[in-house]
Amino acid sequence: MELTRRELLGGLGGLALGAAMVGVGAREVFGAKKEGVPALPWPYKKLDPEAVAHAAYEAYFRGACCYGVFSAIVDGLAQKVGAPYTAIPTELWVVGEGGMAGTSNLCGTLNGASYAIFLVAGGMEKEIRGKAYNIIQDLYHWYEQTALPLYKPAKAKKYEGKIVKSKSGSTLCHVSVTNWCKASGFKSFSPARDERCGRLVASVSMHTVELLNNYFAGSFQRNYKLSAAAESCRSCHDKGSALENTRGIMECGQCHFNLGTEHPK
Amino acid sequence: MELTRRELLGGLGGLALGAAMVGVGAREVFGAKKEGVPALPWPYKKLDPEAVAHAAYEAYFRGACCYGVFSAIVDGLAQKVGAPYTAIPTELWVVGEGGMAGTSNLCGTLNGASYAIFLVAGGMEKEIRGKAYNIIQDLYHWYEQTALPLYKPAKAKKYEGKIVKSKSGSTLCHVSVTNWCKASGFKSFSPARDERCGRLVASVSMHTVELLNNYFAGSFQRNYKLSAAAESCRSCHDKGSALENTRGIMECGQCHFNLGTEHPK
Repeated sequence: MELTRRELLGGLGGLALGAAMVGVGAREVFGAKKEGVPALPWPYKKLDPEAVAHAAYEAYFRGACCYGVFSAIVDGLAQKVGAPYTAIPTELWVVGEGGMAGTSNLCGTLNGASYAIFLVAGGMEKEIRGKAYNIIQDLYHWYEQTALPLYKPAKAKKYEGKIVKSKSGSTLCHVSVTNWCKASGFKSFSPARDERCGRLVASVSMHTVELLNNYFAGSFQRNYKLSAAAESCRSCHDKGSALENTRGIMECGQCHFNLGTEHPK
Repeated sequence: MELTRRELLGGLGGLALGAAMVGVGAREVFGAKKEGVPALPWPYKKLDPEAVAHAAYEAYFRGACCYGVFSAIVDGLAQKVGAPYTAIPTELWVVGEGGMAGTSNLCGTLNGASYAIFLVAGGMEKEIRGKAYNIIQDLYHWYEQTALPLYKPAKAKKYEGKIVKSKSGSTLCHVSVTNWCKASGFKSFSPARDERCGRLVASVSMHTVELLNNYFAGSFQRNYKLSAAAESCRSCHDKGSALENTRGIMECGQCHFNLGTEHPK
């Protein structure tokens, strides 16, 4: 087994060097081979947000939300950069469908976008992880705070009528869906909701590409952050606080105050 | 561009054939190449749950929770099967750290396990998606309802004392962490909590391998399901119901009744 310098520093060698990373990769534990896989981050080339949004909208109707976003960005890069993007099994991201395997947990558009962002901007080392997470968190807060979807296709695939916009206030699939149902009056399994999610896929992929284009042009800056209300919760409950009994960079109020404004018991 | 029969049926050809899948893949939209990537599901060989758990525990301390689970299973398969598992950039799954990029949304162990399950048991077609989702949902409900972690390493890496078990009642990172903090008395960023999450990674990967071994031996059956309380909520709010204003296969009560037992307004 050949270890690259990165693997030596991050893995087995890290132990000998007393580095911060104390575990070894499963690959080293199993003595498994690694073939033709460059280390992250992979090379990025500027993408056309509109073209990616269109591809994502199409792909949604084939493989659902998470696949729609992830494959539109990765296949866009496969077309512009070629390998190693051509060897990614994008169908794997179908699993993020409906908030992961239909459970309505993390919105599939954000799931797919997170993996796409990390592929081009992330990596094993703590510093680069932080840079990628910064982009991802900006995206998540944009999603929570923006009336979506923004994208309108030239020809609608599932519903031709007006698709109203709604703010989710959450990164969870079912909350996002319910708030849209409340705003629109449509049912959660209606063709109109399906159309809305297709346009959401296009909107999130477009915004993700804009963030990545800015990041690689050196002009990325955080535009969205967690609400002041949630930061206030974190000041007593998160890292370094008096209670320090949770963690999280999600909106708190929608779940924890959903029956009123009184502090949960 | 060469299209396989699968792509023809599922993609462009699907339109002509009037199949259920109406979108085309982003790869077809961009005319991007696909090289050396077999279609899902990839071949599975029986893994040793204990060996995978050990590798996952090690890998957690290198690349966090999601990477821990995903890489332990995929690198286990890389060692037993070889290609195509050897070409998967497992570092990409670092992004699931701390509930996705540190946001404390979907627990990283479940994120990593979902992708690993789908890689060997899933695919683009609706029928096989459903089979994989069935395994994933069984895993999620096991996670919600079981006192975890189960795994105990031969030598603890971060905390030598007792690690108590707790039930999360949720698939969310921050809920799982908080319920463990309540049960244990430890803070959410303590070395003991870090140790607990490492053992959770090992426990989830072990259970996932047991599920997959059973599935490919033909002996898988659903052992865990959504609680009766949540099913009762779904009967008025989910697909085909009177209100049909949400979707989801998550526990409802922990968020929606967190200030009492009265129905949310």
